[in-house]
Amino acid sequence: MNILEIIDKKRLNKRLEYQEIEYAVMNYVNGQIPDYQMSSLLMAIVLNGMTDEEVFDLTDIMIRSGDTIDLSAITGQVVDKHSTGGIGDKTTLILAPLVAACGVKVAKMSGRGLGHTGGTIDKLESIEGFKVEMSFEDFIKQVNDVGVAVVSQMGYLVPADKKIYALRDITGTVASIPLIASSIMSKKIASGADSIVLDVKVGNGALVNNIEDARKLANLMIKIGKEYDRKVICVITDMDRPLGRAIGNSLEVMESINTLRGKGPDDVNELVITLGAYMVALGLQMDYKEAKKLVITKLKNREGLKKFFEFVKAQHGNIDTLNLSQNVISLKSKETGFLKRIDALGLGNIVKDIGGGRKLKDDKIDHQVGILLLKQIGDYVLKDEEIAKVYINDIDLEINRLLNCFEITSEVGEIPSLIKEVIE
Amino acid sequence: MNILEIIDKKRLNKRLEYQEIEYAVMNYVNGQIPDYQMSSLLMAIVLNGMTDEEVFDLTDIMIRSGDTIDLSAITGQVVDKHSTGGIGDKTTLILAPLVAACGVKVAKMSGRGLGHTGGTIDKLESIEGFKVEMSFEDFIKQVNDVGVAVVSQMGYLVPADKKIYALRDITGTVASIPLIASSIMSKKIASGADSIVLDVKVGNGALVNNIEDARKLANLMIKIGKEYDRKVICVITDMDRPLGRAIGNSLEVMESINTLRGKGPDDVNELVITLGAYMVALGLQMDYKEAKKLVITKLKNREGLKKFFEFVKAQHGNIDTLNLSQNVISLKSKETGFLKRIDALGLGNIVKDIGGGRKLKDDKIDHQVGILLLKQIGDYVLKDEEIAKVYINDIDLEINRLLNCFEITSEVGEIPSLIKEVIE
Repeated sequence: MNILEIIDKKRLNKRLEYQEIEYAVMNYVNGQIPDYQMSSLLMAIVLNGMTDEEVFDLTDIMIRSGDTIDLSAITGQVVDKHSTGGIGDKTTLILAPLVAACGVKVAKMSGRGLGHTGGTIDKLESIEGFKVEMSFEDFIKQVNDVGVAVVSQMGYLVPADKKIYALRDITGTVASIPLIASSIMSKKIASGADSIVLDVKVGNGALVNNIEDARKLANLMIKIGKEYDRKVICVITDMDRPLGRAIGNSLEVMESINTLRGKGPDDVNELVITLGAYMVALGLQMDYKEAKKLVITKLKNREGLKKFFEFVKAQHGNIDTLNLSQNVISLKSKETGFLKRIDALGLGNIVKDIGGGRKLKDDKIDHQVGILLLKQIGDYVLKDEEIAKVYINDIDLEINRLLNCFEITSEVGEIPSLIKEVIE
Repeated sequence: MNILEIIDKKRLNKRLEYQEIEYAVMNYVNGQIPDYQMSSLLMAIVLNGMTDEEVFDLTDIMIRSGDTIDLSAITGQVVDKHSTGGIGDKTTLILAPLVAACGVKVAKMSGRGLGHTGGTIDKLESIEGFKVEMSFEDFIKQVNDVGVAVVSQMGYLVPADKKIYALRDITGTVASIPLIASSIMSKKIASGADSIVLDVKVGNGALVNNIEDARKLANLMIKIGKEYDRKVICVITDMDRPLGRAIGNSLEVMESINTLRGKGPDDVNELVITLGAYMVALGLQMDYKEAKKLVITKLKNREGLKKFFEFVKAQHGNIDTLNLSQNVISLKSKETGFLKRIDALGLGNIVKDIGGGRKLKDDKIDHQVGILLLKQIGDYVLKDEEIAKVYINDIDLEINRLLNCFEITSEVGEIPSLIKEVIE
């Protein structure tokens, strides 16, 4: 077997055999195949696609490239949750303690942010002292005792995905439903949960930009789950606008606490209740409506919030010192009208550029910076009214770049629904 | 501008602007864009294609990446000839002196072989003392005095093509009509001839495998020529079989001499007369039929042969010491029947592997080795009759690998015509 024959086959849109995909992936991981050959193979996959069988094979090979986690020492069903990534997406911070308060076990491995999207681990590290690494034994113990643990990594999971994802990011080969599906599902399956709720984002700040692609991605991930006897539910949600009002690490932790206090923005509430209800329905094998009632109860009676503090304490975090930059820019509207559009991607890139995210893998994050939206889509805004606050440290930011992220018109527009479809 | 946006645009099958192609090519040449990004862009071009405008732009940028040769100091029309590469293709060795004998000026830059095809320069270096490098002044003087000069390079021509071609070779991105056309034409235009006759090979030993692709390639190269006011004529010829009977450097020089003596194989004769007639018609602005008569005359009266010796002498070659390896394997047929197929690519790879070609760019060539075919397609062969001689030095060769290149059947098959079409 040789890599040029494999590239040729995919270039000619022929189906690759398990052994051929394995040869390409494993020899790339061990350094025998150089980046420039892998990237031409990846572009051929992006443009010619993959059959379902090829995607199953690729997922299996990626899983087998590293360790898999055995969560059988946890009592009860373990439910995982994953979002395909968006701007202002702090749902894991809210959902993990909320569904744990309902009695579902949450044993979660989360990532750091790269590009314009933030990562749950970075957000948790806004909390002073918060430990994102622990031993496997401590992890299992915390899940059994507290009901929830969130760590940055556990074992040597899916190294093939790690190396291939980094290459895709810099070679324009991210936009492929087969590659996205196998990347997400290989990690979810290797990390051991019994069932998985996936938040598939669609829109300008997301990996897929239209509803048809979101449906294809959802269905493919559900099929991969079936191959491994994992129940997968996909909730397709809007990512043309940021989620909630807070973008930035400490800001998002604060908004998460507010949501658990019952004071969250409507869209965050709606999403958390829907995703939470599916997680609880799967974890406690309960009817969806019953599960939804339970989630709402745990929000209202603040047991979710209590669980959040318990979880933070278990991982050595001190929530009392959470803070923001003292340097605040007040963004004022240039005109009067309805707020029609908020550019999620644009704001995500600004937060990254002022230090809230990473441009390179080893960049240090400034947890104190971010953007707080004071107006939401559909709101009527007056000229000179404050529409956002920007928490910033010693970095220059052009005000026009910010203003361009907000579109104000004279017409009352339609407000797109947040939750577009649920596929199971 | 940034390379990821350019890759994305081509991935989405949008037309690239001149500035975008220039950004990608020039920053790749100067090392700012790494191989892994260029290879994913190349694969996107292979699969999504390029508009004619994009091909013209790419060709122009490649030409402008280096020097261009000004041949205006040569008296009379300068005609160039190029073959897209094949097994046993020694036509330049024959055509250059033959059309020079007709009065056309041949100022030619040729390449070395890489992969399974040989290069004219390597073949000429079989001749002891033959100089393939000279100053520009000497080159012009020789063309004016002798009528013909063939050199390995002159100036710093099309460095972009050199670097991109090397990457395409190892990333499975060779098979693209736009990329092949711009690669060939950028070099031809930069090297300064007024008109060009192109031998477009089609078949298993060639860059394009079917007649439709060969026609597309021919038409595209003619269009590029028009953009630069160069008259281009394409002759599409069969490369499912080797050309002539000799494959290997010294062997091909011998066959060239035999052809100029009027004793060449029928297919070599036919090709040389056709290509030569078009070159003469272009160079002397003559009717094709008249030109063909003139070429046949110069073959018959051996003025082409005389010119060959004159040209070799002018470049310091000593033809008297030309020799072959003394170690000869006689290949005998295993059965009786008609020779139906000779695998051009298979034999090309064998000659390369026994030292007649290069696997890596800096490999040294063994000029003494090669394969001489004693039978041609359509011949009736007896069991144990000799079908080929292999001239070899200290390298092992499996006889079955050789035998597998010859298919013998009981039916009288059709002999495919060598010259398939002429497009101008």
